[in-house]
Amino acid sequence: MIENFVEFIKYADQLKQVKRKTFNYHEKVYENSGEHSWHLTLAVLTFSSLSNEKIDLLKCIKMALIHDLVEIDGGDQIIYAEDPDKFDRELKAAKKIFGMLPSELGDDLLETWIEFEKKESAEAKYVGSLDRFLPLYSNVLNEGHSWKTHNISKAMILDKNENAISSGSTEIWNFAKKCLNECEEKGLLKN
Amino acid sequence: MIENFVEFIKYADQLKQVKRKTFNYHEKVYENSGEHSWHLTLAVLTFSSLSNEKIDLLKCIKMALIHDLVEIDGGDQIIYAEDPDKFDRELKAAKKIFGMLPSELGDDLLETWIEFEKKESAEAKYVGSLDRFLPLYSNVLNEGHSWKTHNISKAMILDKNENAISSGSTEIWNFAKKCLNECEEKGLLKN
Repeated sequence: MIENFVEFIKYADQLKQVKRKTFNYHEKVYENSGEHSWHLTLAVLTFSSLSNEKIDLLKCIKMALIHDLVEIDGGDQIIYAEDPDKFDRELKAAKKIFGMLPSELGDDLLETWIEFEKKESAEAKYVGSLDRFLPLYSNVLNEGHSWKTHNISKAMILDKNENAISSGSTEIWNFAKKCLNECEEKGLLKN
Repeated sequence: MIENFVEFIKYADQLKQVKRKTFNYHEKVYENSGEHSWHLTLAVLTFSSLSNEKIDLLKCIKMALIHDLVEIDGGDQIIYAEDPDKFDRELKAAKKIFGMLPSELGDDLLETWIEFEKKESAEAKYVGSLDRFLPLYSNVLNEGHSWKTHNISKAMILDKNENAISSGSTEIWNFAKKCLNECEEKGLLKN
């Protein structure tokens, strides 16, 4: 059994090599998906009183820890890309990864990953809201770096994020909107 | 309140800039303490059936997520260094960091951090065992890189890790010992 756990954690270590589209908050270095997963999980723990609905915190934390493991196979994609096959491709990767574990644990993590992707439960909505807010805030701190690089307008940001963030936490969305308005005033964001 | 959470998560992001002494598992790149914290937390979730004692998994996960935040002020130290003032210095840093949060949450995280440092509870021992095992296993996968760099012998590893790992999980320690013996046979580790 321990051999399975060790193989899993050895495989998972590769997530540190997947580069995201946004910078770390304090340096012009692309965040990797491993450190992002830590930062998100820490935010999930910290912001939990701001969830719109009552949540099971342990479930939320599990979601945040594992949500990006499928990127080891497929890489990170910007949320503004059109990719209709993404879920099917990532589901295949998820089955491979969580299939490395004893079935009870592996099945639980696979179900948790699917629940996060579906964004129907209170937990998935809350974790999803922070998964969108953190990279948005990286842009706020880094002069809109990934917005500029990928030619993203304020309208596109509102379209992709309003429901995704506000359905998990109205308070986080209000804060994000305030940040976006300030970025627009500073000319960091085109309308 | 949300401003406090955002300031905290912004401050915490700096942990990604703290370099550790060991490589990532699959590349000759020093691990940073942010991605290490994710990898440890994921291991805490995965290996939990191997804890010697019954544990509160949510408490363990909180410990793993926050255990290294104090390194933002003080940096990462190799476990083989003598440093009698480490706890007092890190406690000061912990009070500063967790003091950024509303008092109920901040006090809870400060207590959780202190509990981890004391290594008396079942949770602290279990998380501590993985916090020692993961870098040891990085050496196994990377030809003893940090052992060679810092002139660490097998006797020193046993002395520093046997109790720290076996008090949390006998099974993890047995696996670690097997790895150490194999490293010795391959000449990666001096006796």
